[in-house]
Amino acid sequence: SISQDIDHILETQSALAVDLGGTNLRVAIVCMRGNILKKYTENNPRTFEDRMRLILKMCEDAVQDAVSINCRILGVGVSTGGRVNPQEGVVLHSTKLIQEWSCVNLRTPISDALHLPVWVDNDGNCAALAEKKFGHGKGVENFVTVITGTGIGGGIIHHYELIHGSTFCAAELGHIMVSLEGPECSCGSRGCVEAYASGMALQREAKMLHDEDLLKVEGMDMKFCEPITAAHLINAARMGNSKAEAVLHKASTALGVGIVNILHVVNPSLVILSGVLASFYQEPVQHVINQRALKSAQTIKVVTSHLEEPALLGAASMVLDYATRRTY
Amino acid sequence: SISQDIDHILETQSALAVDLGGTNLRVAIVCMRGNILKKYTENNPRTFEDRMRLILKMCEDAVQDAVSINCRILGVGVSTGGRVNPQEGVVLHSTKLIQEWSCVNLRTPISDALHLPVWVDNDGNCAALAEKKFGHGKGVENFVTVITGTGIGGGIIHHYELIHGSTFCAAELGHIMVSLEGPECSCGSRGCVEAYASGMALQREAKMLHDEDLLKVEGMDMKFCEPITAAHLINAARMGNSKAEAVLHKASTALGVGIVNILHVVNPSLVILSGVLASFYQEPVQHVINQRALKSAQTIKVVTSHLEEPALLGAASMVLDYATRRTY
Ligand SMILES: [Ca+2]
Ligand SMILES: [Ca+2]
Ligand SMILES: [Zn+2]
Ligand SMILES: [Zn+2]
Repeated sequence: SISQDIDHILETQSALAVDLGGTNLRVAIVCMRGNILKKYTENNPRTFEDRMRLILKMCEDAVQDAVSINCRILGVGVSTGGRVNPQEGVVLHSTKLIQEWSCVNLRTPISDALHLPVWVDNDGNCAALAEKKFGHGKGVENFVTVITGTGIGGGIIHHYELIHGSTFCAAELGHIMVSLEGPECSCGSRGCVEAYASGMALQREAKMLHDEDLLKVEGMDMKFCEPITAAHLINAARMGNSKAEAVLHKASTALGVGIVNILHVVNPSLVILSGVLASFYQEPVQHVINQRALKSAQTIKVVTSHLEEPALLGAASMVLDYATRRTY
Repeated sequence: SISQDIDHILETQSALAVDLGGTNLRVAIVCMRGNILKKYTENNPRTFEDRMRLILKMCEDAVQDAVSINCRILGVGVSTGGRVNPQEGVVLHSTKLIQEWSCVNLRTPISDALHLPVWVDNDGNCAALAEKKFGHGKGVENFVTVITGTGIGGGIIHHYELIHGSTFCAAELGHIMVSLEGPECSCGSRGCVEAYASGMALQREAKMLHDEDLLKVEGMDMKFCEPITAAHLINAARMGNSKAEAVLHKASTALGVGIVNILHVVNPSLVILSGVLASFYQEPVQHVINQRALKSAQTIKVVTSHLEEPALLGAASMVLDYATRRTY
């Protein structure tokens, strides 16, 4: 009927985006323009069964809600930690940041439950897709994004396409090693950028200083019952705590050297930092590039992402780009 | 005339290949099949003027000789240290391994002198092209080659094509840093793979041991007038000199960690080692990959190149591939 057709036209074409991180499990309804219309957050369960159950439940609830806000869901995009085979929609292997998360077929159960097409890629790659569609990466042929959260992930766009690599292990930028020894990493190696500069690494260092009562600074309001985080470390450094400064200097240097290594491998024209620590790291990373990159690579720009939710937006973009290709 | 036509058919279609390294300047006549028909070697002069003069003279002499062995030279391919803009045929910038070698247009003077088309790329990229056409890289979609000579260079093939990068600085694999501090590098930074594992770095360490009289081992025949090189270090280690072993262990670890970093950025299916130290490094590099790469990257194969002259063959391949495309 005509009224049904009009209803259909008035629907907002949207994607369901899922983000599986070390801490949270999030689902969002994202429209074509990249606006997040609704967002749901839960703790990411620690076992495979609980996690799968929660993913399906959150997705089903979101699809219900989508109807009520007149959104047509075109498909589901999943961003997850770990190595992903996007052709199969399978998580191949994760570090211990996400337990029980290896050889997991995500596409089939989600697609079966929701009767929607499903795309899966890792969080760093999704962040790069988000920048390409909605952020600083629009129209840029070669760029790299580095996302600093609990861990560190990344994505590489080369000739306008993601580099996935031969075993879907490309752009594992958190596991670039900048030391032959160095701190232990969640991946089992040592000296990885993630082990120096991630939120988790800074929290580890903050706790160590706190335990030795070295994190306190005069005038700083420390509620000692609250959990110690990277934010306390940054605050302490800003207020002149030299131990905190030294930790952050090392973390920034490690991230900077890791990024110079990326420049010397794929030489993008742009580096986009995202995640909560991005704006903190931007200046020191630029400084390390000026000091340690080859002259020809020193012109590379470093910017901070303006996207609030790169992983969710990137997950959505896999759906939205496919729908665009099909429709127009 | 018919006899001229037959002469022409019997000519071997060939390329002139030029290799500009930290030590030597070499020119070769290379046929379609990758055989080196004639090779000329001189010391690479230290000044720009002397170097350009010698390049032109060696090329002109080789073109003369080509006539006498009935080779038709289709063009000139140049492999050089430093960053190269291959579209313009210009050396943008070199480390101090090759002095006075920045902002040098190589195409115009060579092309003007020889009336032949000229291609230029850096030595690591040429080595990758050589593997792709004549070596282990034949038919491989994604591979990386790491060439260990005086310095360390590399080339990356992604989707059957070289990655040059936005400022022609991709695949500068010798300047991947594996330490926040570490030994000084020819590029001005510290802790680069080249500063640990190149022929130059090993020679530096060998000399230091030698000066302290620590390189000698019982039963080892050391002519003390001959220049100390990496070979002495390797020999000493093989004969049980633990200081020499420690130096080589660190060099191998640094190279291995650098290669794992490459795997975590572009994730090729194959790593080809070339240069004099390749066979020495193959086993320890494989070991570091097994220990420190992400599980998904541990299946990557490491092989030693069987090409005797990767830089020259790669320089030739730029010419031969172009000629093939044009002719057939
Ligand atoms: Ca990634
Ligand atoms: Ca190169
Ligand atoms: Zn790691
Ligand atoms: Zn260097």
